[in-house]
Amino acid sequence: MKVARTEQAWRDVFAAADGSASELGQMVNTLGAIGGGANGEVSRLAFMPAERAAHALVGGWLAEAGFEVRADTFGNLIAERPGTVAGLAPIAFGSHADSVPNGGRFDGAAGVLVATRLAQLVGKANLRTQHPLRIVVFANEEGARFGEPCLGSKAVIGDLTPEAAEVLVDADGVTLAAAMVALGFDSARIPEARWRRDEIDVFFEVHVEQGRVLETRGLDIGLVDVVAGSARIRVELRGRSDHSGGTPMSLRRDALVGAAEVILLIERQARRYPSGSVGTVGRLQVHPNNITTVPGAVTLYLDIRDVDALRREESVVLAREGVEQIARGRGLAAEFTVIAHTPPVHLWAWAREFMKAACRQVAVGWRVMPSGAGHDAQILAHTFPTAMLFVPSRDGASHVPAEWTDPSQLAVGLHVLARAIALADSR
Amino acid sequence: MKVARTEQAWRDVFAAADGSASELGQMVNTLGAIGGGANGEVSRLAFMPAERAAHALVGGWLAEAGFEVRADTFGNLIAERPGTVAGLAPIAFGSHADSVPNGGRFDGAAGVLVATRLAQLVGKANLRTQHPLRIVVFANEEGARFGEPCLGSKAVIGDLTPEAAEVLVDADGVTLAAAMVALGFDSARIPEARWRRDEIDVFFEVHVEQGRVLETRGLDIGLVDVVAGSARIRVELRGRSDHSGGTPMSLRRDALVGAAEVILLIERQARRYPSGSVGTVGRLQVHPNNITTVPGAVTLYLDIRDVDALRREESVVLAREGVEQIARGRGLAAEFTVIAHTPPVHLWAWAREFMKAACRQVAVGWRVMPSGAGHDAQILAHTFPTAMLFVPSRDGASHVPAEWTDPSQLAVGLHVLARAIALADSR
Repeated sequence: MKVARTEQAWRDVFAAADGSASELGQMVNTLGAIGGGANGEVSRLAFMPAERAAHALVGGWLAEAGFEVRADTFGNLIAERPGTVAGLAPIAFGSHADSVPNGGRFDGAAGVLVATRLAQLVGKANLRTQHPLRIVVFANEEGARFGEPCLGSKAVIGDLTPEAAEVLVDADGVTLAAAMVALGFDSARIPEARWRRDEIDVFFEVHVEQGRVLETRGLDIGLVDVVAGSARIRVELRGRSDHSGGTPMSLRRDALVGAAEVILLIERQARRYPSGSVGTVGRLQVHPNNITTVPGAVTLYLDIRDVDALRREESVVLAREGVEQIARGRGLAAEFTVIAHTPPVHLWAWAREFMKAACRQVAVGWRVMPSGAGHDAQILAHTFPTAMLFVPSRDGASHVPAEWTDPSQLAVGLHVLARAIALADSR
Repeated sequence: MKVARTEQAWRDVFAAADGSASELGQMVNTLGAIGGGANGEVSRLAFMPAERAAHALVGGWLAEAGFEVRADTFGNLIAERPGTVAGLAPIAFGSHADSVPNGGRFDGAAGVLVATRLAQLVGKANLRTQHPLRIVVFANEEGARFGEPCLGSKAVIGDLTPEAAEVLVDADGVTLAAAMVALGFDSARIPEARWRRDEIDVFFEVHVEQGRVLETRGLDIGLVDVVAGSARIRVELRGRSDHSGGTPMSLRRDALVGAAEVILLIERQARRYPSGSVGTVGRLQVHPNNITTVPGAVTLYLDIRDVDALRREESVVLAREGVEQIARGRGLAAEFTVIAHTPPVHLWAWAREFMKAACRQVAVGWRVMPSGAGHDAQILAHTFPTAMLFVPSRDGASHVPAEWTDPSQLAVGLHVLARAIALADSR
């Protein structure tokens, strides 16, 4: 009888999930207004007021849905609902609510909203799961502010120290520790945010694809097998500032021309491989950046990603050698600093099986695929059984105001997530 | 008797000029403190308070020296001392006091101080010249703020309209007209700053070389025959912002990689010629300039200079074609806008003869040479007999805090200028 009631409640949840497009669309707009600008852009940088306001909004929704809501000592939002069987670890799911500067309304927010909507449906259906349910909104997934991504999930697996919080600084020279203090957190207590190895049963993340694979193939769902590893590298080239009119070409040590060669090198290197390897120079600063001055110094940031661990290592080595060679040839001083690097991570196959089975039940088009972007899921996967589900990104737009996933596609993701949790809970 | 008195006064001036190194050194420090920073850098952008404070300081010195001081309707500082022969046009000399951001203490300021010191010596010696003497401190010589250089001298030759003042904007969107209003000037009255064609007899500019030619050859004085023409070009490349992890190389339209090809093209083009041609990308802005976003847009500024008019034209045409080809190859939109361009200008040979004769009298090492950098002198030369004198720049440093010309070298320049004026006045 109890089982029958649970099954009926799940059926109610699945049906309501399918019908959730308009609610999800509204939630996208409500959350998107936080840190949102006039042209659809969203700027919710880590540990800035907008990210905190997003946590407060979602926390309010989750509390209303009957979840117990708290912030952990790092500033991750944790919401939990008890299960019916004592001693079972929670089934956890969620994503992140921070964004890059001038990003869009989806990215991690889409996964947060799908999780939140599921919490609402579970509450409405008065569904009792055997395992507790835990929803997590990770802080600081984007590395946009402090350079290093996935800090909230790193805190959860015990891979972020109070010392690191003193070293990481934003563009204004504010340390992560100082940013935390300003919001009432104490970086000395970061270790308390760590989860025990048996603290959760399984973790599911829903996220937008940030690419064109699903759209191109007309699929609704991607199940991630491997997350590409990434190396973020700061290259500083120093030559000599000179007057652009008074200095013959032969006497110049132009840091920007050296930087141009580095940019083309990084592209050429990634293009050697048919797929799975990308290299980007996304950020570049010129000094003094004056039209009549030969640039004396340039700082550029490289982002090298690969699904293959050895190939990524090799790309970093080749980039370093290439930068040194370019600098030697032009009389520039070069510094090559790896500021963050994460190896490729294979997610957990047995956790993915719940999602595969859910996709088959819902009868959607799906495929297993790698993720080029980094995610909290890849951090959690170091310690916890983790699976990840992509919904399509229109035209692959990501980290830009044009980000879009149709609410009906979010509803499909929600339905698949709900069934995956049901399957995990019933084993 | 009167001639003898004048000759004696000139001899006093020449002797005092030779002994002016320590005074000139002090004046460099006093003027350099205006808009100056902790590391020797000077930022006195056009129509900013520091440039105005520099005009006020120099104007005070000139008034003390017995000159009548005023600002013209564009904001150039004009100081005049009457001559003894009615109807003779003034012998004019001077330079500019504005700087690039994080420039040095010399550049145009050196010429302004040499002119000011000469005014002091003329006053002390109670020298009566036949021609009036006019000292000019031009406003806005550097194009650093509004993109277009030599605006003060352009106003003086009637080549700056009130309409242009509405169009030229700085990086904060402030128009030249608005910047003028903020300082009490009215851009509608710019035409009143124009000099009649017979308003001055001859114009002499003293400036630092901004290169290494004099130092390399152990010379004290350079006499400029031709000023290189310059084209300043804004190139806007627009591709598509994408997530750096989720977007395969083959699907990218990366504006920064296109910009890198443009930077190398501009260098390659200038290097085809053994001398006299330079090409620089000194300023570049990336959008959104985020480490995990493929750059969607880049604005870069080209500075193409040549002493040969036809070669410079050709370089601009080739740059335009090259940019278009690069953009086509990468699916980028490109805009190529010539924001300012000045043809090479030959200065006036007969005006230079006074300086040559002065160099021979003083028995210094000198040579005739081109100027790679643009100067107010080249603008005045369109209308007025104009000559120009360089003093050495240590290590060629220009537009940087390390700018340095030894005060004893400034004193040599002062002595040569004094003798050139004496020769021009006595004809």
